[in-house]
Amino acid sequence: MAFPRPKPTTMETLAMERANPPFNIRKMSIAMHGSEKALILKEKFMAEIARHPAFKLSDIHDLSKDELRERTMEKFASMVYFVTNESLETFQLRMQLIGIADPSFWTRFGVAYGLFLGALRSGATPNQLSYWIDRGVLGLNGVIGCFAMTELAHGSNVAGLETTATFDRGSDEFVIHTPHLGATKWWIGGAASTATHAAVFAQMIIDGKRHGVKTFVTQLRDTKTFTLMPGVTIGDIGKKMGRDGIDNGYIQFTYVRVPRAHMLMKHTQVSRDGVVTEPPLAQLTYGALLGGRTSMVTDSSNSAKKALTVAVRYAAVRRQFATGKNELETQLLDYPIHQRRLMPLVAQAIAIGFTGLRLQVMYEDMTQALDTMEPSDPNLNDILDKLKETHATSAGLKAFCTWACLDTIDKCRQSCGGHGYSAYSNFPLMYADFAVQCTWEGDNTILSLQAGRSLVGAWGGAVKGKKLAPGVAYLNDSSLLSAKSDSSLSLSDIQRAWNCVAYNVIKKAAEEYVALLKSGKSKDEAMEKCSQSRFIAAKVHTIGYIFRLFKEAVEEMKDDEESRTLRTVAKLYGLWQIEEQQGYFLKYGYFNAQQIDKVQEAVDALCLEVRGVAIPLIDSFALSDHIINSPLGKWDGSVYESYFAQVQAANPLPKEHPYFTRLIKPLLERQNEDMEDPGSAMGLDDELKEIEEERKGE
Amino acid sequence: MAFPRPKPTTMETLAMERANPPFNIRKMSIAMHGSEKALILKEKFMAEIARHPAFKLSDIHDLSKDELRERTMEKFASMVYFVTNESLETFQLRMQLIGIADPSFWTRFGVAYGLFLGALRSGATPNQLSYWIDRGVLGLNGVIGCFAMTELAHGSNVAGLETTATFDRGSDEFVIHTPHLGATKWWIGGAASTATHAAVFAQMIIDGKRHGVKTFVTQLRDTKTFTLMPGVTIGDIGKKMGRDGIDNGYIQFTYVRVPRAHMLMKHTQVSRDGVVTEPPLAQLTYGALLGGRTSMVTDSSNSAKKALTVAVRYAAVRRQFATGKNELETQLLDYPIHQRRLMPLVAQAIAIGFTGLRLQVMYEDMTQALDTMEPSDPNLNDILDKLKETHATSAGLKAFCTWACLDTIDKCRQSCGGHGYSAYSNFPLMYADFAVQCTWEGDNTILSLQAGRSLVGAWGGAVKGKKLAPGVAYLNDSSLLSAKSDSSLSLSDIQRAWNCVAYNVIKKAAEEYVALLKSGKSKDEAMEKCSQSRFIAAKVHTIGYIFRLFKEAVEEMKDDEESRTLRTVAKLYGLWQIEEQQGYFLKYGYFNAQQIDKVQEAVDALCLEVRGVAIPLIDSFALSDHIINSPLGKWDGSVYESYFAQVQAANPLPKEHPYFTRLIKPLLERQNEDMEDPGSAMGLDDELKEIEEERKGE
Repeated sequence: MAFPRPKPTTMETLAMERANPPFNIRKMSIAMHGSEKALILKEKFMAEIARHPAFKLSDIHDLSKDELRERTMEKFASMVYFVTNESLETFQLRMQLIGIADPSFWTRFGVAYGLFLGALRSGATPNQLSYWIDRGVLGLNGVIGCFAMTELAHGSNVAGLETTATFDRGSDEFVIHTPHLGATKWWIGGAASTATHAAVFAQMIIDGKRHGVKTFVTQLRDTKTFTLMPGVTIGDIGKKMGRDGIDNGYIQFTYVRVPRAHMLMKHTQVSRDGVVTEPPLAQLTYGALLGGRTSMVTDSSNSAKKALTVAVRYAAVRRQFATGKNELETQLLDYPIHQRRLMPLVAQAIAIGFTGLRLQVMYEDMTQALDTMEPSDPNLNDILDKLKETHATSAGLKAFCTWACLDTIDKCRQSCGGHGYSAYSNFPLMYADFAVQCTWEGDNTILSLQAGRSLVGAWGGAVKGKKLAPGVAYLNDSSLLSAKSDSSLSLSDIQRAWNCVAYNVIKKAAEEYVALLKSGKSKDEAMEKCSQSRFIAAKVHTIGYIFRLFKEAVEEMKDDEESRTLRTVAKLYGLWQIEEQQGYFLKYGYFNAQQIDKVQEAVDALCLEVRGVAIPLIDSFALSDHIINSPLGKWDGSVYESYFAQVQAANPLPKEHPYFTRLIKPLLERQNEDMEDPGSAMGLDDELKEIEEERKGE
Repeated sequence: MAFPRPKPTTMETLAMERANPPFNIRKMSIAMHGSEKALILKEKFMAEIARHPAFKLSDIHDLSKDELRERTMEKFASMVYFVTNESLETFQLRMQLIGIADPSFWTRFGVAYGLFLGALRSGATPNQLSYWIDRGVLGLNGVIGCFAMTELAHGSNVAGLETTATFDRGSDEFVIHTPHLGATKWWIGGAASTATHAAVFAQMIIDGKRHGVKTFVTQLRDTKTFTLMPGVTIGDIGKKMGRDGIDNGYIQFTYVRVPRAHMLMKHTQVSRDGVVTEPPLAQLTYGALLGGRTSMVTDSSNSAKKALTVAVRYAAVRRQFATGKNELETQLLDYPIHQRRLMPLVAQAIAIGFTGLRLQVMYEDMTQALDTMEPSDPNLNDILDKLKETHATSAGLKAFCTWACLDTIDKCRQSCGGHGYSAYSNFPLMYADFAVQCTWEGDNTILSLQAGRSLVGAWGGAVKGKKLAPGVAYLNDSSLLSAKSDSSLSLSDIQRAWNCVAYNVIKKAAEEYVALLKSGKSKDEAMEKCSQSRFIAAKVHTIGYIFRLFKEAVEEMKDDEESRTLRTVAKLYGLWQIEEQQGYFLKYGYFNAQQIDKVQEAVDALCLEVRGVAIPLIDSFALSDHIINSPLGKWDGSVYESYFAQVQAANPLPKEHPYFTRLIKPLLERQNEDMEDPGSAMGLDDELKEIEEERKGE
């Protein structure tokens, strides 16, 4: 069928949007990726996986859970090559990209390398680590690991885990045991069908005394036959909201014996006699958590950019309703309300992206500083303070960035109307896959409260005159208490606005806390009681922090077309968030009612301005059609053609109707008997009439 | 394995939560359901479907799309009996309940009866209607209908649909045709594999002249063989975010002929000669849309209650972290932040539920008044005004209630931590199924703007001194412009707060609109330009409206334990929403900064108070374990046992590992060759050394 098409086509429309961009897309893209090298590597990785059959994405919406899992394992072999042959930095960039394309595989791979190997790296002695490396933990040739921490009844409270590891002095072994249903290891990625070993977190018991939760490498399956080891019961956790390509399972241990040497002993040691030696100081675990959170901030930006690439391109080519006498219908992107729906989210994704880049640099600098520093170094305390502060801030960043991304994905879906509800738009899977980021590595609400707790602490320091770490240094500036806008709505004015409001909400939380202490509450109770204010403090501080890092990044760039565009984007982000949180700005008087109206006008105007460069800006995200995996977001704008082709390819007509004969035919051919009046069906009424007539005649 | 359990068990914990409720749960439940009769019927329906094999729910997470669709058709037969034998009122209650349990079936059923039959009812002449009823449209014995409105390139803009229906005078037929890809009928529920006929919306063309979009009943399939009719091309739309039990399809017509008599002619008539008679007045279609929106408000409440039943019961039995020296860990529900996460959402679901009940009554009263009224009635204009106002308000209600529900479902999921991510928690499906409610029957953003447009219009009336319909009557009260709180935070104070703020935001939108007109913009342009302010106006008005209807319902109740609890709930809803939208209250000066702090304190206190009755309140929602379909929300509190049992039942171990031999074994047994240095593997370096030695010796 040859379809005549209205003019201009969607492809022509998108080409027009790309004509004469006011900045160099390549340069913009390099700025967003941190370096040209990072961008080139990303392009190489994208080309590689687009050509690799195991990384086919177009059919994933119609694969079953079991098919998705099998495909996950197909990807392992190629990745094992890279993990053992590439530099760590290159490999991390590779995985970052794969995380956007294929979150399920990323997770399964991360379980083996990030969690299991990570547990060995941070918990094993050098000899233990060599032993496991010799056993094949790097190349997976001998050991495929998983990470058995969470239990059915315990997630956040790791210290409360109930699996036991009891020392048997006679045999020099630990006996791993699941005492009751709630202690069943749960959600263990890789346990259901692919892992041979697990890092098991269990309460160590020696001579009846509990020594807290330690880690024990426990073999789950025979590596030759893959049968379960004696005493190990494993089940499949089954269907999840998303990430069905990872085989999460549960594990119950029934008196499973592991050699004492399989307990990781870098920190706590247990001798042959069962004597426990605790480490002199609780280890600094900030570093590891910080790394994970940094990558989640980056992933939030990337995943949001993926969704926005689809939504913005679709909004550029989708036309609906003609205005005035125009015969051509209006592009969605030209409606002010549609600009309002998408442009602030574009700004936010870019802001979070720059935050991730800077966080990564801070994290690397701090790690290096700590590694090379002597305990006697006079700067040690400053660096530790900064590390602690960044660690606390990163808790808030993880929470608010993953929430922002999840929200962005769903708003993008809704902005595409009905087509966003099609699986092939890819929004449903993006949402379902991403949703877990708000829960794992710390539930977002709990992490926000941790960030809030740290801010309350920082306030206490500021009150005592302590010079605070850079991320919270504004708390040392008491002039913020009653700061007012200079009405310029410049980047500095916006920054000062956030500092002022963050200062005030942190002060409120801290004062509530102190008042509760004075009223006789314990520290724990007081912290719980002021949790709403702590939560608000974390939220406002985090948004202001993202804005600051974005602003700093932009201000460090030389003054060119790219940086000028990014300044506009930064302004939109800062002002839109002020609008969203306007209550605090009015409450603490930074802006008055008239100024807040000006903020709304400015956001309208900035949305329009960013809309003007929306397509080049989205193109700078540098995400291939393969990665995006949505016909609605096709680079060339062939939205309807691609969508139709994909729907057809994914849904071939069955040769025979699967249930016409059994279900539909009987319905269609049904007689109406059951709807007739039973009396008349039996001829009862006629009969009665006859009887009556007869009686009359009698 | 016998598991020793800590005390108290989850079941005992939930029983304790139910001991001595401060109100009568049955009475509360009757209040929430509108009448005892409605509650009893609901309980009957729940018992029926719990026992009906086709309505099995526990296994749906692991069924494929095709299995779900087949099961949908299994349900038709039993429902056809009820639809033809029950009163409309009873049947509507039945479908309302089924809508909560099984949204896919509800949709497919609604397509046949709500949309297809509805199109006949509103568009067919009496003779046409009889004809189709004789053909079997009521009992589905002859006609199974679907509704072919939306096209690939047109959704919201119905007038812009591109399918054509060209009159062929010679044969007295219309020729239905799909001129190009974008005009393909898309998303048509039932088209893919179950419908025999469609109500096709197409541009009517007679003698080359376009007469706008009309409806044509078009046969799609032979009812004996189910083969497609000539010229009809149908494909499967495939996988969706949710509601996979409905077979959405696409349809392309290639010059398909239908008799002229199959055009629905209640309004526009086309004679044998092709003469078109348009109706004297555009029909009042408010009624039909209003009915649909009312049911979506009710469904939003019910779906939110379903999610909350799970989240609140789980929060009552889940314990995490011990506080102080307590050996027993704390129930999640006892954490202030967890109360903050769930209690306002409980209040909101209840508020929306009462709004739905009152809306239903208003809708029925208005329908009846219109039906029985003579055109000469002096009250006609008042009633039409009221109808128009309720219609506009219902657009905003549909938008903000469906958004509120979708948000509630995801917040409930997150509040259950990792287990909320399991398919068996049922949150993922609830979310995926519900998400489309924000898009269909009018995209929420577009509906909000419609509501906003009507509010701008109402403002114009108020300025001219017109007495407005009840829903917007507050716009006649100019004292609201600068109203102030009396600091009581009573229900009246809260109501006045919402009226004041709604008054001001509507005024702002209207003044922006007028200023734009004065600056020379057309009405359309001006409306688009002020869309952000219109959106805000709709949002604030709608929340205030929900609060008012809830407050009125509670105040009409006699003063007893139930109504006192509901007053607390209403207060929580009103104040929490004030907190959420605090910017407007501060901006327009209804509350000052100190009063806003008091609002936050009050919300904290109300969350704690509602937490005290949370389980009895949730029980009053009267949703059976079958409907909830989530082990995490089991009525008896046997959360872990039920969850474990369901995971096991849904995921039997395979007899053989599906890909160990093909994928895992080669990985485990791989030799490390490829990681070795190729030079040394070839013995090259030794060789070179030998050569060197030899040379030295020469």
